[in-house]
Amino acid sequence: MDTQVILDSIWVVFAGVLVFFMNLGFAMVESGFARAKNAANILSKNFIVFAVSSLGFLLLGWGLMFGDGNGFVGLKGLWMAGGADNSPAVGDAYRGVYGAISWTGIPFWLKFFFQLVFCGTAATIVSGAVAERVKYLSFILFSFALTLLVYPIVGHWIWGGGWLSELGFLDFAGSTVVHSVGGWAALAGVMVLGPRFGKYKKNGGINPIPGHNMSIAVIGLFVLWLGWFGFNPGSTMAADPGAIAKVLMTTNTSAIMAVLTSTATCWIVTGKPDLGMTINGCLA
Amino acid sequence: MDTQVILDSIWVVFAGVLVFFMNLGFAMVESGFARAKNAANILSKNFIVFAVSSLGFLLLGWGLMFGDGNGFVGLKGLWMAGGADNSPAVGDAYRGVYGAISWTGIPFWLKFFFQLVFCGTAATIVSGAVAERVKYLSFILFSFALTLLVYPIVGHWIWGGGWLSELGFLDFAGSTVVHSVGGWAALAGVMVLGPRFGKYKKNGGINPIPGHNMSIAVIGLFVLWLGWFGFNPGSTMAADPGAIAKVLMTTNTSAIMAVLTSTATCWIVTGKPDLGMTINGCLA
Amino acid sequence: MDTQVILDSIWVVFAGVLVFFMNLGFAMVESGFARAKNAANILSKNFIVFAVSSLGFLLLGWGLMFGDGNGFVGLKGLWMAGGADNSPAVGDAYRGVYGAISWTGIPFWLKFFFQLVFCGTAATIVSGAVAERVKYLSFILFSFALTLLVYPIVGHWIWGGGWLSELGFLDFAGSTVVHSVGGWAALAGVMVLGPRFGKYKKNGGINPIPGHNMSIAVIGLFVLWLGWFGFNPGSTMAADPGAIAKVLMTTNTSAIMAVLTSTATCWIVTGKPDLGMTINGCLA
Repeated sequence: MDTQVILDSIWVVFAGVLVFFMNLGFAMVESGFARAKNAANILSKNFIVFAVSSLGFLLLGWGLMFGDGNGFVGLKGLWMAGGADNSPAVGDAYRGVYGAISWTGIPFWLKFFFQLVFCGTAATIVSGAVAERVKYLSFILFSFALTLLVYPIVGHWIWGGGWLSELGFLDFAGSTVVHSVGGWAALAGVMVLGPRFGKYKKNGGINPIPGHNMSIAVIGLFVLWLGWFGFNPGSTMAADPGAIAKVLMTTNTSAIMAVLTSTATCWIVTGKPDLGMTINGCLA
Repeated sequence: MDTQVILDSIWVVFAGVLVFFMNLGFAMVESGFARAKNAANILSKNFIVFAVSSLGFLLLGWGLMFGDGNGFVGLKGLWMAGGADNSPAVGDAYRGVYGAISWTGIPFWLKFFFQLVFCGTAATIVSGAVAERVKYLSFILFSFALTLLVYPIVGHWIWGGGWLSELGFLDFAGSTVVHSVGGWAALAGVMVLGPRFGKYKKNGGINPIPGHNMSIAVIGLFVLWLGWFGFNPGSTMAADPGAIAKVLMTTNTSAIMAVLTSTATCWIVTGKPDLGMTINGCLA
Repeated sequence: MDTQVILDSIWVVFAGVLVFFMNLGFAMVESGFARAKNAANILSKNFIVFAVSSLGFLLLGWGLMFGDGNGFVGLKGLWMAGGADNSPAVGDAYRGVYGAISWTGIPFWLKFFFQLVFCGTAATIVSGAVAERVKYLSFILFSFALTLLVYPIVGHWIWGGGWLSELGFLDFAGSTVVHSVGGWAALAGVMVLGPRFGKYKKNGGINPIPGHNMSIAVIGLFVLWLGWFGFNPGSTMAADPGAIAKVLMTTNTSAIMAVLTSTATCWIVTGKPDLGMTINGCLA
């Protein structure tokens, strides 16, 4: 086996595992910020969402996203990621139906794993937005549809050789694909569900709903921070030290500036620092 | 140093560290599912079991397991893993007394570390089974005997060139060596200890004993899931991207199907989903 | 790109990320051992300290520590780590102002990242010592000064080519640079702040102040243990399997002997084992 393939593969496994671990981070942040009575419900959602996502993305999502097709959707190798593929061959040597992701020289199931943990992140973003507000079964069906159809189709437009990528649209680490799909889906969910009971006063003011366990929320925060070191630098999908080093430090510097400015803002506005606001700042 | 040795070593360190981290996972699952009054006792057990295992496996266990000997037990290089060894040499170039594990080309102490974290997993499986039921000192002595003698001897039969391996018995990632030794030892412990007080009603019915903290249990679950990405793919003990990718996805797919089927089963049987059952399903 | 550079870089990213994760470990140990009323304050401190450290070390600290200068302090490339540098070139091929760390052949920002997580560890050690005793703003200013000036200047003496290193002083994994700077700073803080209210009885006896959540403390313990596998073996800053394997096992053996002896000591002295003492033993 070629040394470069091994190097790239080790790097992608490492980064992918960190991104997978972000599931724990989201679960803890959401659980810690929620009220105690809802913690079990939230944990259940965060826990099952990755399982549902894995199923949806394996069944059909991968094929729709990366299969050769037209500018709107993938059409080949749709089911069970089962199309022909001679990875880790790249470029002209590649023979298979998932040409859009043939630029990275790693084994097929490793490509799948890394894309899966990204897809799972998009789904779990939704779970945070609808926390304390959604029924369990509705959430499962919603997540399944998101990862089976919605995320892969939008993903195809950008990373699958679809119409947005042909217009020259670039999205290195998924700020459009992962976060905006997750975000729009979350907004849709929030609009349907409305605010939590008791969130707004009769006169229109807001009742803050404080979380129940800051230790748990801080666990979540650090695990997510850790996960970003996989999410962003891992998006190279290749062991390129110069690029990894730069992306790593950019990620960290962004995070710390967010922590510091959100802490300072909250301090100035309210007269005292607030851990909840600091954590939210870091994640944003 | 040969590039392949470096690649294999990085991979084994990565995987071994993830398996080590499973100690936290077991501690959290057991603590979260136990009653609050017993949490400190359980945490103490999970914490000290890896220390005791490390001592037992270093003192004598490694030698019994991998030392050259007969079909039943290793006889050379018994104490303190101190036998002659010219790792990372492999195959015909290997000179030493631990020939049974000379197939992997990594430094000696890295072989030891990876086997140690497996051994520690077997010991900690027992701690889950006897949770809330065992005295601290008894558990320490039990774990010490398990990792000093029992696990290494059974391990020798399969991975140490003993009689089971000569019959053609294969065990890639330790389902027999680690889990069944751990499981049988746990069964023995449970039979001696009997059920927890109050587990059974007078008429023979069962009182469910719910856990006290689901957030902690979910931390444990995700940490264990993470650990499996080291446990199974790491068992290659070599940076073979194709094998790693396949084992990684098989591990994940098994986990998610277990999550989904256990959730569905519990839902159908009891009429509502139960996070505890979902977590137990994932681990099984 | 040279294969050795890639190998070394993957290793340093892996180790650095583990050391970063120690921030979570310290936060959980301190929070778990503190009283519940102070947990939020402690979590806030542990959370912001890495952000403040990152800013201080980026602004000026790196330059003072590794910039070419005299035996006392770095003088070149002071601000924003912005001096000339052609990493990953090493030895005679190196052209730049950070010659003291040109022995490791990895990209510049990866050197910075690894040194940053070490610097952050020194700062967070202080936060443990002054737990439950310090005002939030004072702590932030203190941490900023520590990572902007104090740690880098002492670090320059040893790792930056300063007077201690010219006397032949060696410090492989930072026991002087990281831990004693952190420790002395912590001692200074403790002397200024005095004991927690209620710690001492009127007659001079000691009131033990037990922690409020052992599950959280155990999370911290295992995360720190994990972090040590990055901290010590990572200090090679190169993928040298033999050295990594030895340092890894030495780290683990030290930890387990500390666990066992502290447990035994506490058991003998007080007549029963104490999880808090066991955890403290492991960390020491």
